[in-house]
Amino acid sequence: MMQQVEENALITRLSSLLPHRPSQLNGVQESDAELVRLPGNNQILAVTTDAIVEEIESGLYTDPYLVGWMTVMANLSDLAAVGADPVGILVAETLRRDAAETDIAALQTGIRDACLRTGTPVLGGDTNFSDRLHTAGTAIGTITDGSPLMRVRCKPGEVLFCTGPLGTGNAYAAVQMMKHVRSDFPPFLPVARIQEGLSLRTCASICMDTSDGVLATLDQLGRLNKCGFHVDKGWESHIAPGALNIAEMAGMSPWMLLAGPHGEFELLFTVPPHKIPALQNAAHQAHWIPVRLGVVTESPGISIADWGTLNPDDLASVRNHPLGCKSDIPQYLRYLAELEERCRTSTKA
Amino acid sequence: MMQQVEENALITRLSSLLPHRPSQLNGVQESDAELVRLPGNNQILAVTTDAIVEEIESGLYTDPYLVGWMTVMANLSDLAAVGADPVGILVAETLRRDAAETDIAALQTGIRDACLRTGTPVLGGDTNFSDRLHTAGTAIGTITDGSPLMRVRCKPGEVLFCTGPLGTGNAYAAVQMMKHVRSDFPPFLPVARIQEGLSLRTCASICMDTSDGVLATLDQLGRLNKCGFHVDKGWESHIAPGALNIAEMAGMSPWMLLAGPHGEFELLFTVPPHKIPALQNAAHQAHWIPVRLGVVTESPGISIADWGTLNPDDLASVRNHPLGCKSDIPQYLRYLAELEERCRTSTKA
Repeated sequence: MMQQVEENALITRLSSLLPHRPSQLNGVQESDAELVRLPGNNQILAVTTDAIVEEIESGLYTDPYLVGWMTVMANLSDLAAVGADPVGILVAETLRRDAAETDIAALQTGIRDACLRTGTPVLGGDTNFSDRLHTAGTAIGTITDGSPLMRVRCKPGEVLFCTGPLGTGNAYAAVQMMKHVRSDFPPFLPVARIQEGLSLRTCASICMDTSDGVLATLDQLGRLNKCGFHVDKGWESHIAPGALNIAEMAGMSPWMLLAGPHGEFELLFTVPPHKIPALQNAAHQAHWIPVRLGVVTESPGISIADWGTLNPDDLASVRNHPLGCKSDIPQYLRYLAELEERCRTSTKA
Repeated sequence: MMQQVEENALITRLSSLLPHRPSQLNGVQESDAELVRLPGNNQILAVTTDAIVEEIESGLYTDPYLVGWMTVMANLSDLAAVGADPVGILVAETLRRDAAETDIAALQTGIRDACLRTGTPVLGGDTNFSDRLHTAGTAIGTITDGSPLMRVRCKPGEVLFCTGPLGTGNAYAAVQMMKHVRSDFPPFLPVARIQEGLSLRTCASICMDTSDGVLATLDQLGRLNKCGFHVDKGWESHIAPGALNIAEMAGMSPWMLLAGPHGEFELLFTVPPHKIPALQNAAHQAHWIPVRLGVVTESPGISIADWGTLNPDDLASVRNHPLGCKSDIPQYLRYLAELEERCRTSTKA
């Protein structure tokens, strides 16, 4: 039996206890945002909630500006992945009772800037006080015509694309979690791919954001669609150059920028070969360029050109790795290095 | 200058930094839920978010079942107060890493039971792990015809009503926070007044839920509408009998059940005298009985028959009282007793 991804098992277990809506379009895990047809018209509402808790407690996010920015962008990225147009966002803020005024202002400014960058209004929120900072955002969007993008229903032979350069999320994590890694890398402030998502609605078969890293995203898509992926020769050229520099300084090989759990918030999507001209046309009109990463395969797992193959059990093991705090990082990198050695060996054999 | 309510000042300050939606129907604080007209049709979306943080950290909520129940009901109560029909709820759960399976199951069961009680589906959620339990819910509803209920635009002479017996929230708090208070009072599991809110849409001028207690709710409505309220003779008969018993055991006078910050999640609303037959008709059809509490007055503050008068500064002082943990309770009750003495004296004078 294929090794379970613990997060999936948890979500399935928690969700199984709760009542669901018959008119909900997606099953559990089948899309980045929840999709509901509104009574009395053809509009589909897309809603999603994402709390910033573990990123703060693990030391990954220390700047309140980034916490505010990500409270907005993590949620908007889920709307982007279903091809929804944002209506607005709600923000529940748990502030530290002893927070400096400057920190509260930085949090609000991060929220504001992320909203302005994407043209998304803040509809409202809630404020609590505690001895630590936590936030929870909820984004609301609409799909007024056509179908939403979902994670399910791709076929072998389809082409795998992404919306932009990869590895920036895990490069940021390396800088943040490893004191000796210094860089001139621009600040990590990912922008939700709203316009890209909108232009994918007519041509992509499946879509998911890379908030948990590229390999976790591909593994999730593979499990849901009972397929695998082959990543093309030349994949390293799709990693952001700054991220490659950081990986080198951190003693990480480039694939680890795909394997780490802190993603770049790009979209991964597949397109049937005959729809590629439509994709190129739609992307051109929305002023972005799709990046071809590989193809959908019938066999499960992820094969990476010039590197090796990760089978589903390898991928479950990467995703289940408990990665809590700074002290775990060297051990985590040793684990990834051993896995790389094994996957490369098994490919040569 | 009227004394400020600190929570209002904070919300105004935080909100002033953020971009808003031109098509949003309510200004900051003007309704219990945010109201947005959806593009392309006449439907109004009502959305609200509420995190359960301080209730857990202060020791007010210790039972995970109650935390789950309130995560749903606190949000649905805000939908009820705008007269919206629930579409569903999203729940962001921050679970304790060492949580017992039974506690996680109790949390989920509380969410489930609150959803089943109100016919509301769970659309989705998010799960994090920390060393403490926090939750944040977001409820989504629609108003398909007519106008939403808001907190603003009532007139002196209108009649003040509530949807049910008062004082249960503060009675629960007394039992929970004071070890010596024991009771056979049924468990505190308030039910959002969804049906009541729907039937108020055609006749009520303003509406707000009592999640922060009756006096805080009336004070907020008074500030927003530049008016006051007179509470009728016989108001004590509208307090739940079990709550009165608890107040007596706790050494609280009955008005403290209105003054405390932990509300009963009923709706307070006003109706112009000529619309009272319409109210009675709508309520009868929805199988509930409106409870007359008093009237809207031109003069600010709250006068309570057979008791005294709280001016806006008194009310701000009650609402600004820092009430954090169990050890503060006797001091808080002494503060309320002194305030009562002063307000009764000033009325006699």
